[in-house]
Order: sequence, then structure tokens, then C-alpha cells
Amino acid sequence: MEVEVPKVFMKPLLVPNKTLMGPGPSNATRRVLDAMSNPLLGECHQENLQIMDEIKEGIKYLFQTQNPATMCISGSGHAGMEAAMCNLLEDGDVVLMGVTGLWGNRAGDIAQRYGADVHYVRARCGYALSFEDIREAFQTYNPKVFFIAQGDSSTGVLQSFISDIGDLCRRFNCLLVVDIVASLGSAEFLMDEWKVDVAYTGSQKVLCGPAGITPISFNQRALNKIKARQSKVKSYYFDITLLGQFWGCFGTSRIYHHTVSSTLLYGLREAIAIVCQQGLKNMIRRHIECSYRLQKGIENMGMEMFVPEPNHRMSSINVIKIPNGVDWRKVSQYAMNKYFLEIAGGLGPTVDQVFRIGLLGENATEEKVDLVLTILREAIQNTSGITLNERSKI
Amino acid sequence: MEVEVPKVFMKPLLVPNKTLMGPGPSNATRRVLDAMSNPLLGECHQENLQIMDEIKEGIKYLFQTQNPATMCISGSGHAGMEAAMCNLLEDGDVVLMGVTGLWGNRAGDIAQRYGADVHYVRARCGYALSFEDIREAFQTYNPKVFFIAQGDSSTGVLQSFISDIGDLCRRFNCLLVVDIVASLGSAEFLMDEWKVDVAYTGSQKVLCGPAGITPISFNQRALNKIKARQSKVKSYYFDITLLGQFWGCFGTSRIYHHTVSSTLLYGLREAIAIVCQQGLKNMIRRHIECSYRLQKGIENMGMEMFVPEPNHRMSSINVIKIPNGVDWRKVSQYAMNKYFLEIAGGLGPTVDQVFRIGLLGENATEEKVDLVLTILREAIQNTSGITLNERSKI
Repeated sequence: MEVEVPKVFMKPLLVPNKTLMGPGPSNATRRVLDAMSNPLLGECHQENLQIMDEIKEGIKYLFQTQNPATMCISGSGHAGMEAAMCNLLEDGDVVLMGVTGLWGNRAGDIAQRYGADVHYVRARCGYALSFEDIREAFQTYNPKVFFIAQGDSSTGVLQSFISDIGDLCRRFNCLLVVDIVASLGSAEFLMDEWKVDVAYTGSQKVLCGPAGITPISFNQRALNKIKARQSKVKSYYFDITLLGQFWGCFGTSRIYHHTVSSTLLYGLREAIAIVCQQGLKNMIRRHIECSYRLQKGIENMGMEMFVPEPNHRMSSINVIKIPNGVDWRKVSQYAMNKYFLEIAGGLGPTVDQVFRIGLLGENATEEKVDLVLTILREAIQNTSGITLNERSKI
Repeated sequence: MEVEVPKVFMKPLLVPNKTLMGPGPSNATRRVLDAMSNPLLGECHQENLQIMDEIKEGIKYLFQTQNPATMCISGSGHAGMEAAMCNLLEDGDVVLMGVTGLWGNRAGDIAQRYGADVHYVRARCGYALSFEDIREAFQTYNPKVFFIAQGDSSTGVLQSFISDIGDLCRRFNCLLVVDIVASLGSAEFLMDEWKVDVAYTGSQKVLCGPAGITPISFNQRALNKIKARQSKVKSYYFDITLLGQFWGCFGTSRIYHHTVSSTLLYGLREAIAIVCQQGLKNMIRRHIECSYRLQKGIENMGMEMFVPEPNHRMSSINVIKIPNGVDWRKVSQYAMNKYFLEIAGGLGPTVDQVFRIGLLGENATEEKVDLVLTILREAIQNTSGITLNERSKI
């Protein structure tokens, strides 16, 4: 043997306890973290299957859906997006991406890799799409699949009237895929009522579960498109027909598809349990109230939200314009170094333009809002010398 | 809202502590489990990147490689297999699968989905491939990629002379992919010396880490093939060029690719640390000794190993023919119900024909060998009425 034991493993693992107020992951509660130190289970053990069944029921509640094909992808939110695209799309299929930030473009990249004919309808940066824009693009491209993020975490834009988009999709015989990675639990989402055909969410955002396991749901229309495919889904790992058999979604006997991480299932199960105990409506209300408090605090400091229209702002991820003369990196580092508090910069189209503050799940409280405002102000003043607006006393 | 809160979430999560002696996952030690209850970190936080760097160094030691493109896939072992295939293969590429059980066929399914021209060289069930068989198949198909599992967990077959296959691949200008999911740590594996171009392993087998995070390594030859691709890798999630930038493999600045689960990184880091502290060679020796003890015990009971040739038996997953008159399901259930001990049945080509006993990592000890033998004998006798051979006193 030539490669020696790396010396670094003689040192213990040390993980700091931070306050995660970026775009996610958020802080998981002690209940979720403790759950993940439970012993491992085999993927087909009865107790594991039971937990999977419970998670399915939980996701149905969170998504407000009755879809039997509700399950998890063993991967991050990106994997959920890829699973949605690669199951629905075949070579040459026309797909239209609604772009309100980074995620429509990312979905476009993925769909193109899988051979689709990709088109875009783009909102002005910081704005939501108008129904007119979407309808015109439908008339131009006549897509088989339309993608939109309910909340785009890079811009903080919340896309409204998804229900109307659902109706539009039915008229065009088009499938509607909605990315609710960063919005679920912080804004109303009614999958069945709004006629959404595929939706997936992040486990480590408002849910405050671990990253790496992504709830996803397909309705019958989506399954029909998949059943009618001329070609196999190009990915085995993301093949919903196989994965759904593993998750026991189709009433057939279970098959072994891959080894799901029982650890992540434990964490997600407990994260969902917490939401269930709080109630989804209460949770959404709390996020909206906290975001409102944060926005008021930001405006009191003389700063501005990136999304001009208040009704189009996400409550979970709050995006704030960086004032002139402020270096966001220094601010972010100040907060991290002095307080172990995460305040994030921009992503994709908002790089170097914004701060992003996550009020996700456990961190959507008045106390945390006030904490992050206090630290943000201190960090800006200490790194730039700018004195923020007098109104900024919180 | 129409979908009500599922009542099941009013109950607490209860996870039994089993002795996992099937084909994996194996038991994780308390150190690994405790690590996973650490607070979450953002994927780009300094401490998380540090842990990723440590894991990279650990994998290089485990694989005995200097490859900079050493990282983890955020998914199960199946995801590792898919990542290997989809990065190396383009439409029409000829690929040859060595089949010694289930995994060559699974790799073939995946490669076909990604558009490759797939051929197979198959060993008789329970046997390893001969070098002659492989060479002939190379002459017939002239593959660009050859796949083989070092250990096939469905049959228990250990494929030897991988070094010779490495030489053969170089002569044919072919890339060698070796699946070491179930063998790493229980049999020698020298990635660089044996001229293996891509290898990936399971985290939840001999390593005794959590499932869901899969170490993988690409050498320069593999990267050259990827660089020379005419088309983008069809999967974004498994695109090694992007993922390697996220893992800091190429000396360029890191990019955000997906949200890796910090929880799984903690568990894997600690699992690797345990192997490092024990030493890889000691670990391999322990697995071989324990497997030998188990095989002796099985033969003393009058039972037979599924792989006739002792040198072609994996030491991590021990596959045993089911004696006539024995119902494996009853035996397995007996052991699980009475002792919370997992003894598995067959998979793929060995379904209903074998027991599979995993001696994986922490469970590769004399005590565990004796425990599983005792329980296996009791379970067979109690469920079938068969009295096992007198020699069977352990």
C-alpha cells in the first residue's frame, strides 16, 4: 500500500452550532437531530417501510394531495427537479420554463440534457411572471410541460396564481411542474385543487429536516404521460415507476430499488411530525408574520427589499438590496465570525446584489427576526462605517 | 384544506436496535450515530468543506489512489453506478458488462438507458469470470468501457485478477469501472496499481457508515474521456465535472452544485476515521478470518457455500445454499422476531436459493460469527424440524 492513513482522522469531529438564516439548510430541532442518531435499518425492514408509509401520508398533507404516487427521491432538491424532468420528458418534447430567478434556468439545463426542446418565458429580475406573459408563451410554443418555481430562492420572488396556470395547462394539454423547494410551509400550496401535476420540495428549508431526501408527488395525468413513453426513462435512479414500487405507491408488491438512508428518513419523519403538530396553516401564518416584521425592520433601517411588489415576496427567503458602500462578504463574515449567524449573499442573477435572509421553520420567530436585524445592522455599521437610518431602532 | 393531518404523527418514532447481518446496511457504531445528531451545516460553510476535504483524503486511502477526482455522490450505491455510467458513456458507445450475479446486469440496464450499446460476458452462476472469457469478449466487442463488480453481493462471488483486467483494458484502450460497493475493506483493492479507471463503494457496507452517500473516484484517463465528450452528460445531478468542482477536486474555485447532506458527511467521516484508526490491512484480514470461521461453521452444520471455489468467495457477504426442506423466509423471520438478527435471503439470480450473511465492519468479529451460526442453526431446526449435522457444535 502506498497511500498512507490521512493524519486528519486522528482529530475528533467538531461541528459548531450555528444559527442558519441563509436560504437553507435551516436549523433542525434537537428532536430531528436526535432521531438521526437512531440505529440504522435495512431498506426493506418492516419498521423502515412503516416510516416510509408515514412520510408518504405526511407529504400528502403538506402538499394537500391525494396522489398515491407520493414518495421521496434519495437526493437533494436538485435531484427532485431532475426526477420531475427526466420522467416526464422524451427526446424532442417541448418544454417551457417559467423563469423568475435561477431555478427556471436550471430546470432548462436539466431538460436539455435529457433531450427536450427547451423554451423560456422570463420575468424581469425581481418580478413575478404575469399571466399574460405565460399565456402568450403557451400560444407560441404549445409546450407539453411547463415548469415554474412557486418561490425562487435566488430572487425571493413568489409566483402567484398557480391555480390559473393549472387551468391554462389543462387547456393546452400540458403538464404543470411546480418547484416548491423553498416555499412549502411558508405560502399556501394546494396541489390537487390547483391542478399541479408534479411537485417536489426541499427537506432542509421550511421543514427543517436533513438535506438529501426530497419529497415529490406525481398525479395521474403525469403518470399517464410516463406510461405512454416511447423510451425508458434515461435515469434508473430517478425512474418514478420503479421508485414508486419501492415506496409502495401503486398497490403492487414492493421491489428493491436502491438503499434508502434510514437516517434521513428518521429525520424527515420527525420534521414532518413537528409541522403536523403545529398545523400547516399556523405555520404559513407564522412565516408571513415574521417576514412582515423583518421587512419592516429592513425598511426602518433605510434598506430596500429586492422584490418591489410586496405580494410577490416569499416569506421564507427574504431578499434585500445591498446598500451602496456595503460589502456583503464582509457583512456576512462579520455575522458568522462574531455570532455564528448565517446571512447569505445572492445566487445566480442576484450575485453581489443582495443579502438573503432565511426565516425557515424553527427560525421563523419574532426573536430570530429581531436577532438577525440587530446583527445585520451591527455588521453593516462595523464593516462599512455607514450609520443606518435613525428609524432603525428595533 | 382537505387533506387532514395524519394521526400517525401523534405517535413517537421508535427504532429497534437490530443486529444487521444481511448484505447491508450493517450496524453503525455509536460514534457514527452520535456524529449524525450534530447540528446541520450549510454545504458551503468552511467547516463543511473541511469535512468534505477530509473525506476525500480518507477515500484516497481506502481506494489506494492519488486521483484528485475523488468525491462522493449524494445518493446510494446505485447512484454511484449510474454516475460512473452516465459520465463515461455517450449514445452508441460500446460497453461490456462482466456478470457474476445481479450487478453486471443492473449496470447494463443503466448504460442502455443512457444510450450505450451494451454487451455482456456472463459467468456461470456462483462462479467468477475467467480471464479467457473476458479476453474473448474484448476481442468480440472491442468495448470502450468494461464493468465488473469486485464482489457481487447477490452471489457472493469475488472476482480476482482485477490487475490483469486493468492491463487488458489498457491494451484495448478501454476504461475499467470496478464496483467495490460490497467488497471494499474486506478484500484488497489497489485502484492505481491495478489501473482501475473508475471505482465507487457503498458507505453502509464494510465502512458501517450511513446509506445515501457514495464514495467514487475517477482517474485522468476517465476524465479525458469525459472531457472529449461530444454531448453533455445527460444527468446534471451526476455530472462529475460539476460535482468535482463542488468537491474542490480540480484546483478551481468551488461552485455550488447541490445541497449535500451534512448529516451524512458527519457519519461517513467518522466511519472512515474508524477504518483509518484500525488500518485497512488489519480490517481486511479480520474480515477474511471471520468469513473463514463462518464457512467452517456452515460446513460443520452440513451446509454448503453457494460459491464452490473458496478463493472466489467474498468475505464480507457470505452466501449459503438453502438445504432441502428449509424455508428461508421462516428462518429469516424466526431470527428477526426472536433475536432482532437479520439473516437475508437471495437477490436477483439467487432468490429463494440462498441465505446471505453479512460480516460487515463492526459485525466481522468472532463473537458475531458464533452468534449468527447459533441462531441460524436454531432457526433452521425450529422452522423445519431438520436436525443439523452432529459436527455442528460450535
